[in-house]
Amino acid sequence: MTAIADDDPATVPDEPRTAVPDVHHTAVSDVQNEERPAQRNPVDPGELDVPVIVLSHRAPVAFRDEGGRRRARRGAGGLVTALVGLAGQLHDTVWVCAASTEEDVAVAREHKGSAIYVTMTGEPKLVDPETTGALQIRLVEVDRAAHEDFYGVISNPMLWFVQHGLYDLAHSPNFGQRERDAFEHGYVSVNETFADAVSHEVEERGGRALVMLHDYHFYLVADLVRQRCPDVVLSHFVHIPWPGPDAWRILPPDMRERLLFGLLGNDVVAFHTERFARNFLLCAQELLGLSINLDKMTVQIGKRTVTARTYPISIDVDALVETAGSKAVRNRLDDLEQWLVAADARLIVRVDRTDPSKNIVRGFLAFEKLLDDHPELVGKIRFLAFLQPSRLDVPEYAEYIGQIGSVVARVNARYTRHGEAPIDLRLHEDFPTAVAAYAICDVVLVNSIADGMNLVAKEAVSVSRRDAVLALSENTGAHEELGAFAVTLYPFDIQQQADGLYEALTMPAIRRRELRQAAADIVRANDVGKWLAFQLADLTEITGLWS
Amino acid sequence: MTAIADDDPATVPDEPRTAVPDVHHTAVSDVQNEERPAQRNPVDPGELDVPVIVLSHRAPVAFRDEGGRRRARRGAGGLVTALVGLAGQLHDTVWVCAASTEEDVAVAREHKGSAIYVTMTGEPKLVDPETTGALQIRLVEVDRAAHEDFYGVISNPMLWFVQHGLYDLAHSPNFGQRERDAFEHGYVSVNETFADAVSHEVEERGGRALVMLHDYHFYLVADLVRQRCPDVVLSHFVHIPWPGPDAWRILPPDMRERLLFGLLGNDVVAFHTERFARNFLLCAQELLGLSINLDKMTVQIGKRTVTARTYPISIDVDALVETAGSKAVRNRLDDLEQWLVAADARLIVRVDRTDPSKNIVRGFLAFEKLLDDHPELVGKIRFLAFLQPSRLDVPEYAEYIGQIGSVVARVNARYTRHGEAPIDLRLHEDFPTAVAAYAICDVVLVNSIADGMNLVAKEAVSVSRRDAVLALSENTGAHEELGAFAVTLYPFDIQQQADGLYEALTMPAIRRRELRQAAADIVRANDVGKWLAFQLADLTEITGLWS
Repeated sequence: MTAIADDDPATVPDEPRTAVPDVHHTAVSDVQNEERPAQRNPVDPGELDVPVIVLSHRAPVAFRDEGGRRRARRGAGGLVTALVGLAGQLHDTVWVCAASTEEDVAVAREHKGSAIYVTMTGEPKLVDPETTGALQIRLVEVDRAAHEDFYGVISNPMLWFVQHGLYDLAHSPNFGQRERDAFEHGYVSVNETFADAVSHEVEERGGRALVMLHDYHFYLVADLVRQRCPDVVLSHFVHIPWPGPDAWRILPPDMRERLLFGLLGNDVVAFHTERFARNFLLCAQELLGLSINLDKMTVQIGKRTVTARTYPISIDVDALVETAGSKAVRNRLDDLEQWLVAADARLIVRVDRTDPSKNIVRGFLAFEKLLDDHPELVGKIRFLAFLQPSRLDVPEYAEYIGQIGSVVARVNARYTRHGEAPIDLRLHEDFPTAVAAYAICDVVLVNSIADGMNLVAKEAVSVSRRDAVLALSENTGAHEELGAFAVTLYPFDIQQQADGLYEALTMPAIRRRELRQAAADIVRANDVGKWLAFQLADLTEITGLWS
Repeated sequence: MTAIADDDPATVPDEPRTAVPDVHHTAVSDVQNEERPAQRNPVDPGELDVPVIVLSHRAPVAFRDEGGRRRARRGAGGLVTALVGLAGQLHDTVWVCAASTEEDVAVAREHKGSAIYVTMTGEPKLVDPETTGALQIRLVEVDRAAHEDFYGVISNPMLWFVQHGLYDLAHSPNFGQRERDAFEHGYVSVNETFADAVSHEVEERGGRALVMLHDYHFYLVADLVRQRCPDVVLSHFVHIPWPGPDAWRILPPDMRERLLFGLLGNDVVAFHTERFARNFLLCAQELLGLSINLDKMTVQIGKRTVTARTYPISIDVDALVETAGSKAVRNRLDDLEQWLVAADARLIVRVDRTDPSKNIVRGFLAFEKLLDDHPELVGKIRFLAFLQPSRLDVPEYAEYIGQIGSVVARVNARYTRHGEAPIDLRLHEDFPTAVAAYAICDVVLVNSIADGMNLVAKEAVSVSRRDAVLALSENTGAHEELGAFAVTLYPFDIQQQADGLYEALTMPAIRRRELRQAAADIVRANDVGKWLAFQLADLTEITGLWS
């Protein structure tokens, strides 16, 4: 469970997590084309004869000095799975990312900032450039103060809060010189550093490469790379929600315009849902005055056309199923099952970071309302909440944990029976137990206020053995794919969520099975390999890729 | 100053306020057609040969028992001015509105719920139906409990908060059975009551009438009236911001869908700005799945086409100028001027209700930053803030007043010199002094988080004698018309607002004059008469009005 242990908030930046215990990547050529417009065919990366440069903040490996010995550990996240798989099939791929640990910096310096070569089967290993199947990784060292501004002031929380609608606008934000400086000397400066690194890799390949940028850390990179390398093809995937123009007006115009113009340096800007893609175009229209086409999903900027596209990310189903069958998970599953059988209870599960966007407090309020409304359930239901503490340096997050504790204490004080508390709150990462809980729970609760995709929903339906019902917020990206096979939750309505939980718990077995099977089929058909293959297909079609 | 005294939050519902001291209505036929598309010509209501039924929550008169004597007082608001003017020119107009006072209820009962006749020149008077120029008013009595749910739970705060982006989404709202019941038995029920009253007036006129509905209290009325009176022509003016679909997802789908379908019962739905109109269509598309046309600004619902239109409301300039010349205002002006001259100080003014949407706390923070950054201004500048307490029964509003007091105390503690505090906070209505302050101030501060129009901006530039610079939030409706002639403020950026105030205070006299004159010209050219005339023109063009 190497990958899981790595998903530690102290060492790995927060990003959507998925189960990637081992490589075991579904070959892109294997995936099927269901649930997609017929005209789009996924592209087999093996047929792509162009160099690919990937940029993400989080690296696919992290080096550490463990008792004097350098160890490499695989980074978590669906992106790592997908792109390691991609890299294995292309003749030339380099992954540009941040040197996050001190040992990463040491490695980067030893290689004078140029790419290193790492094999990713089993424990990652630094190898010679000639090694077959090795992944090229360029670890970029970033000035510590600039990185703190970039990461701790602008990316999280500012962009995260804007894009998830988390500001209490009557009272915050209050932007001042501190934020302006952090933008200029942090976000802009770090984006320039990474644009330099990416441009360097493009230039080394004669100026023609496909560049795939990732997430809210790097909105300015595309435009900078294009200025230096005009023949490049650029795409940017935004992994978090993209709200409409109203929300972006929270930022002063110089910031929001530079972020948008930065993204418009791409050929394709990609999102998880149609709603986010449309919001992006509406921003270009309303905040920049550009001409957009909502049928073709394009925006015109000078002579260039930028296309907005939708590719819902997914999980590596086979890898997760393998994890679910592992000894570690089976042991936890046995423990959980005994506990439930002894209590003659049913199980609601949630797995989240303690991010206000996950709507954890309202989830417990809804559970309390469920018990208020249905006394017959008291003592007969457990709510197991795996909540990984997150961003405790952000005051709103620290307070949010307190609020979680407060509501859990009240509900448990009111409804503990025979020494058994209804809510089991676990404020630490425990992926094997979480997977075991997915497998035997009755309901999975995902009630996010806003959520780019939410992979918990996809994980749970993929390994459920008891036809868990997905209770899924309409404001998750996953709802666009899975909403028809879930009990939809409206995240600000406590009563509706309580009623939704009751509906999920009392649903006839045959209906539970139908829903779960349909959802699992969709997840399997559109797994993470297809996510990438369709992006490559569109990039080929839209830009021609110099052919 | 009868109309002003009436603008008392305890007796009059909160609505945009404008200066309407006396009737003195600009004849619609006098207004000019500048600043408008050439193809649209305003319609002279005198040429309109159709009955008009107006619905607003607030009445154009309020009756009170004053020591055993029934007195009628004119309601405040630009709407009253515009529509009283309209009514005077049409052969048949009736205004449907809520019986707000106990005496209103008594009057309504005496007339068995049918329309009363009131003359509006000078003090309003109940008169015989035959009286020339009398306004027909139908005062509708509403069940007290239903009204409390309609007004105190749904309209304010729920719809107000959604439409102004004021919810702290991580923590509120928490909708439950209370809100569902308030919607069903309050908002829906009161809308039905008013739809009945309107339908009755339509039927009395043979089923053909032009119905003009107003504001967020009555989103459900149009559809109900249309069902009963299929030949009717309906328009609805939304006086507050209309945000994009993201914001409406705060409401559970049954509520938001019913509100939208209710509004789609109209022929025209009208807003202050293009942005609000576009957001409305995007809601119809995204939340209802309807087909929209953003070029024609229409939405298709079944066989009907609903048009979204933009008409920025304004003030009655002549009436305000008359007020500014009144003895009451001149006396206050002399006092203020003496005070400023003695202090050799310049003056910043703001006039608002204590509504969090007005962004009052950040305004004071920006003023503090201005003094921090420019010590030479300390002792040389006064900030006169007229803040009318508002909705103190809503906890967020009560807390907001406390926060205002807190920041004012700190700034005054830090920057009082020679016994003179820089901020003069007046938590009561004093329109004559506010108009005097408009006349002689250097800067008018309007930094709203969100604001449908904001008439303070229009009032101030219309009566300024010292070329006041308008410091105006980009998030006000007024900014679409006046932004080019103002210092634009970004409401979440304290530093930018401080810099904006400094820019306004240090602007060369000739530039101040140019800006003020241009803004005043726009306000005069597009005054409240034109606001109405263009609506009538579009309604005639779009529906034909049975011709």
